Amino acid sequence: MAKVVMDITMSLDGFIAGPGITQEVPMGIAGHRLHDWLFTRKTELDSELLKEVVENSGAVIVGGHTYTIAIEGAWEKSSPFSVPAFVVCHQLPSFRVEGFTFITDGLASVMEQAGRTAGAKDIWVMGGADLARQCLYGGWVDEIHIHIAPILLKKGTRLFTENEGALTELEIMRVLDTPGAVHIYYKVRK
Amino acid sequence: MAKVVMDITMSLDGFIAGPGITQEVPMGIAGHRLHDWLFTRKTELDSELLKEVVENSGAVIVGGHTYTIAIEGAWEKSSPFSVPAFVVCHQLPSFRVEGFTFITDGLASVMEQAGRTAGAKDIWVMGGADLARQCLYGGWVDEIHIHIAPILLKKGTRLFTENEGALTELEIMRVLDTPGAVHIYYKVRK
Repeated sequence: MAKVVMDITMSLDGFIAGPGITQEVPMGIAGHRLHDWLFTRKTELDSELLKEVVENSGAVIVGGHTYTIAIEGAWEKSSPFSVPAFVVCHQLPSFRVEGFTFITDGLASVMEQAGRTAGAKDIWVMGGADLARQCLYGGWVDEIHIHIAPILLKKGTRLFTENEGALTELEIMRVLDTPGAVHIYYKVRK
Repeated sequence: MAKVVMDITMSLDGFIAGPGITQEVPMGIAGHRLHDWLFTRKTELDSELLKEVVENSGAVIVGGHTYTIAIEGAWEKSSPFSVPAFVVCHQLPSFRVEGFTFITDGLASVMEQAGRTAGAKDIWVMGGADLARQCLYGGWVDEIHIHIAPILLKKGTRLFTENEGALTELEIMRVLDTPGAVHIYYKVRK
């Protein structure tokens, strides 16, 4: 059974994008700074960690809003993923490209289809925040890989919002740091 | 000149206390779990890190609300600190004990007095959240030492709330992990 891995970059103050997200500014104002560890400040270790998540993933899950924002601009009208990606959406987006399967009948259905595709590999939940929270608080996520960028963004899209669930226990599996991020790998206790 | 160090424990989802704080439950519901690294899961390294902040501090700054909540219950009517502590408050609390100086004329005054007391040692900003944010966003904080507990609390008192300031750059100085926390030491770029 495929593991479900949420792998995401967050500022120390909890934001995964800046405010004012548009197709032209898909990470919001200053939000690109979250990904310094993947671009301007990338070290060999950062590259290895990125390679690892890509190689370990047999399927990707992405939110409908993220798809719509990214597909024509940031992703240049084609899938940036080397494996099948599943878009969780309420209704089919008007612009659809190869490499993406659009699922409108809920998370259980997405997980089933992504799991079949991933086989022994992982299902990578790559965001946005709303999808990540649905997966996490719905009990689907087995591991959280979080890359904490050394910035305080102060506003934007928060990953973890208040919710009514009980405390979730995590187990620290691995901690690594590079100049551009502290990389923490957690197992979610169920 | 004394360095101002914010040293605080936060859940991965950004809370430094649970909801429902009272004198009887000073960390709020489930909030005591943040401090597992100081109690039930304490390792030798955790002890060393605690000792370090205590030994390096020449003065402590604490918020008026935290003082009022903690002094009669959690702190058993005496200062838990071995060095002078300064309480930042709008008006003098009715219950006052030795070891605390109560400052009602603002943060600049607190920093000046705490700095004189600390000498070459650090000024430790220990919370609560409101005071920590005032110090941080007011540009007073030189280092953030954050202990990220491996839990999602989901509700309670958030350390970092939205605010209007510009992005703050941090520099990762040191990263350590124990079963009960990932300990990250940042320098605040000014």
